[in-house]
Amino acid sequence: MAKFTIGLDYGTNSVRALIVNVANGAEVGAAVWNYAHGESGILLDPRQPDLARQHPADYVTGIARTVRGALAAAKKVKGFAAADVIGIGVDTTGSTPLPVDAAGEPLAFQKKFAQTPAAMAWLWKDHTGHAEAAALTKLAAQLKPEYLAKCGGTYSSEWFWSKILHAKREAPAVFKAAHTWVELADWIPALLTGTTHPAQLKRCICAAGHKALFSAGWGGYPAADFLGALDPALVRVRRSLPDVAFDVADAVGGLTPAWAKLLGLPAGIPVAAGAFDAHLGGVGSGIAPGVLVKILGTSTCDMAVAPLAQNLPDIPGLCGIVPESILPGYYGLEAGQSAVGDIFNWYVNRIQPGGGAAGGHAALTAGAERLRPGASGLLALDWHNGNRTVLVDQRLTGALLGLTLHTTAAEIYRALIEATAFGARVIVERFEEYGVPIRRVINCGGISAKNPMVMQIYADVLNRPLEISRSTQTCALGAAMAGAVVAGAAAGGHATFAAATQAMTGVLPKRFKPIARNVKVYEQLYQLYKRLHDVFGTRDCAANQFAVMKDLLALRDAARK
Amino acid sequence: MAKFTIGLDYGTNSVRALIVNVANGAEVGAAVWNYAHGESGILLDPRQPDLARQHPADYVTGIARTVRGALAAAKKVKGFAAADVIGIGVDTTGSTPLPVDAAGEPLAFQKKFAQTPAAMAWLWKDHTGHAEAAALTKLAAQLKPEYLAKCGGTYSSEWFWSKILHAKREAPAVFKAAHTWVELADWIPALLTGTTHPAQLKRCICAAGHKALFSAGWGGYPAADFLGALDPALVRVRRSLPDVAFDVADAVGGLTPAWAKLLGLPAGIPVAAGAFDAHLGGVGSGIAPGVLVKILGTSTCDMAVAPLAQNLPDIPGLCGIVPESILPGYYGLEAGQSAVGDIFNWYVNRIQPGGGAAGGHAALTAGAERLRPGASGLLALDWHNGNRTVLVDQRLTGALLGLTLHTTAAEIYRALIEATAFGARVIVERFEEYGVPIRRVINCGGISAKNPMVMQIYADVLNRPLEISRSTQTCALGAAMAGAVVAGAAAGGHATFAAATQAMTGVLPKRFKPIARNVKVYEQLYQLYKRLHDVFGTRDCAANQFAVMKDLLALRDAARK
Repeated sequence: MAKFTIGLDYGTNSVRALIVNVANGAEVGAAVWNYAHGESGILLDPRQPDLARQHPADYVTGIARTVRGALAAAKKVKGFAAADVIGIGVDTTGSTPLPVDAAGEPLAFQKKFAQTPAAMAWLWKDHTGHAEAAALTKLAAQLKPEYLAKCGGTYSSEWFWSKILHAKREAPAVFKAAHTWVELADWIPALLTGTTHPAQLKRCICAAGHKALFSAGWGGYPAADFLGALDPALVRVRRSLPDVAFDVADAVGGLTPAWAKLLGLPAGIPVAAGAFDAHLGGVGSGIAPGVLVKILGTSTCDMAVAPLAQNLPDIPGLCGIVPESILPGYYGLEAGQSAVGDIFNWYVNRIQPGGGAAGGHAALTAGAERLRPGASGLLALDWHNGNRTVLVDQRLTGALLGLTLHTTAAEIYRALIEATAFGARVIVERFEEYGVPIRRVINCGGISAKNPMVMQIYADVLNRPLEISRSTQTCALGAAMAGAVVAGAAAGGHATFAAATQAMTGVLPKRFKPIARNVKVYEQLYQLYKRLHDVFGTRDCAANQFAVMKDLLALRDAARK
Repeated sequence: MAKFTIGLDYGTNSVRALIVNVANGAEVGAAVWNYAHGESGILLDPRQPDLARQHPADYVTGIARTVRGALAAAKKVKGFAAADVIGIGVDTTGSTPLPVDAAGEPLAFQKKFAQTPAAMAWLWKDHTGHAEAAALTKLAAQLKPEYLAKCGGTYSSEWFWSKILHAKREAPAVFKAAHTWVELADWIPALLTGTTHPAQLKRCICAAGHKALFSAGWGGYPAADFLGALDPALVRVRRSLPDVAFDVADAVGGLTPAWAKLLGLPAGIPVAAGAFDAHLGGVGSGIAPGVLVKILGTSTCDMAVAPLAQNLPDIPGLCGIVPESILPGYYGLEAGQSAVGDIFNWYVNRIQPGGGAAGGHAALTAGAERLRPGASGLLALDWHNGNRTVLVDQRLTGALLGLTLHTTAAEIYRALIEATAFGARVIVERFEEYGVPIRRVINCGGISAKNPMVMQIYADVLNRPLEISRSTQTCALGAAMAGAVVAGAAAGGHATFAAATQAMTGVLPKRFKPIARNVKVYEQLYQLYKRLHDVFGTRDCAANQFAVMKDLLALRDAARK
């Protein structure tokens, strides 16, 4: 008898449920529900462009809508029965904390806070706490530099403590009413298992480690005296937090009878601790030691794992190294590029070369495909939204060199794509340089599925074959795999993530293999990219750049022969 | 009784005659004739994109067409009579040499060469002689480095000797039949005065000095042994050339009775020695010591003069310093930017931001006008067609820094304009640094007449008031001024160019004055431009550029406050 698990995937604008056969990863049913509140599910404030909140009611409504929808679809598949669902996993955006009362109920559900933005969930991309982030960074530099070493030197306005401290300053009534703050990734598993009470709530290492400065190295969350120095009111929040955190192999409890009835699922099936979407996307793509998973979309997330036993050094410029944040038993390493698809979209949507269809992705891709590597004489820096890895610097900007009176729109488009590929290579090299070997690169996300030219350029620049994840819903699949692991082998699930990965993930037959003559040219262009990368992106490289334009022209002339 | 002179202006596609009142510069009649042969007057060869020739018959036909047309127009002006025309001046493109026989007749007029491209005039932009230019440069570097010092270190494929040597190699029959080669600027005055016979022909210092390595410092044209080392056949050409050259205050003769009758002008009126269009454009704009004349078009020509008595040093990166090439008694100094309007046109016509009208000059100008200096965070290098002054390097390319996901098409347009203004400032500073003071800047050419935003940006970047030449036909006006000077005061003309300039040139009442708050920002941006200029454009500057993007963002943030 086949067994199945459910992955619940909370994205920025919608929630998805995916039902997966644990034996082979077959996706037998899925449903998506768009959040009802705000614009595309996001509560905005025209006077505060940094503000982005979500109503927790949407999170609750979305469970039944999507799980029942996915079950309805799955029931049409031969061999599926709801009674054979053995576990649930959850991934969400983050850091997306919400304030809750002493009973663990979201303040947003109280009548007096029903319209109060600060009582809602603070979506990952809410930047209202930038002053608070700067204050925390400054204080940590003085008192606890080790905190900053774990997050790339700068604490972000997108993260847990920035948001809570901003709430204290801007919405004191909400702050006062909040007993504690709970990440969405923790709240959904708790809700399904009836463990939302603060005394019972289990928090996941993924959110705590990457966003809330949790580290076993200093006993969990940041020290109360440090937080108190930032603001005495934070001491109370710190005391509301536990000293342990859980990984995705840990079940936070069993599905409550009430939820089981509502959803039409067996009561008591285990629900895994949550994790962020990208991390479980890595799992759903088949992450393992030696495998780099790249989620290629508007930006990228580049994930790898390394055995805890390896005693990994700090890796300069890598902003997230958290034990067990992706897989139990391994460091989770998270890198990324601040903008990839966003750069191509900027060029198409804001610059609109040629206007309309002539400047659309399809036409520019057709034009760029005809170009040989190096033939444009162009070289770009892909820092239009700053540089996340390895420079960790939001205040870097994009550049384009080698322009002539003959430069075409398609040449620029290709140069922008190549620049993101060079940026990707910097990350791969940094991993390997610090003892994290990359033997396979598995790609998922919109670009990997839709743009073979981009994938071929990446293969040529990285000089590695590139694989594409078989699933197009790797986050939900990864969550479903967590459900299979917490269910365990005895229940028909899997004993380990290695077993789940073996059984449930895979790549498409089509691989992008490096083309030797392109590799040769890109090797030279990459060296030029690195020169510009270092002289504009670091403080310590002083070099003459006279050769850059000459070398680009020489490569151009050679490519056109 | 008012007196008048005629300026004959041979451009790339057409010839123009302009009749000017010598007392006040009033332009009383004009006519333009488009050359009849080839495409827009240029003979092309689809197999040789470097080839650009003109049929000398067009030069001859154009005289009567335009002079008679201008006279017909002038006769409608009260107080004008053809009998009161007292002199003629001529400006042409160059280096545009044509092969002539022993009698001084163009070979193109011989039946057997009537269809032979090499027997035509070799238009300035003919680049077929690039191998010969490289050979001359290489040889001069070994044997006569002083030759190269006078032309910026590289002899061009556009110039006299490159073209003749290429003819010898590619069209030996033409080379053999040619007794000598004559610049168009020399041939027209000779034609009008019946002095085309090689024994009589007077050659102008402007063409000889700027394009044919003529210098009093080494006894005129290059030494026969040097040319012989390049190719023994050139010795015969060298022997056909005189050891003196003439400036525009010299008459080459009087208008022949035949031409006088054909044109309807008094016989015997003096015809001035010719000069290149840009140089007489400088004269027509009011060039004088302390005055920089900028011809602002697809590229720029920046001209100044300095007294011969000043004993001017070599000025690094200034490719033309020729005694009396612009005004008698003065060094003529010629600098320029390889592309200005061409860069704006590249952006509009090739990149087409927004497509169609949305990406046209008018719409982009409207958008760019609304931007404050610095507010885009962008900085560009204006080297899309290389850099003529002061780097003298064709193999430099354009660049654009500071791009973000919010960068707009209008911001890039403005950044490109600003980059050309920074390039203009480098030239002004180089002049002043080497003892050529710039007290006034007078602008002419299409951009100065049509684009007030560009002019204001230039005024702000240069931190100087900018004046605009009153005449829109400064080249023809300068030629007419030469006609007035060779006529002399006794005939109702002028004794000197200073007197002619005083009487016949002027600027528009509207000046572009620097705006203090813009000057302040551009001062900072220019310092960043200079950093990039030196680190990419010279061999000897090694510097870290980490501050560039940060400083641009800081300027942006300040400008947007």
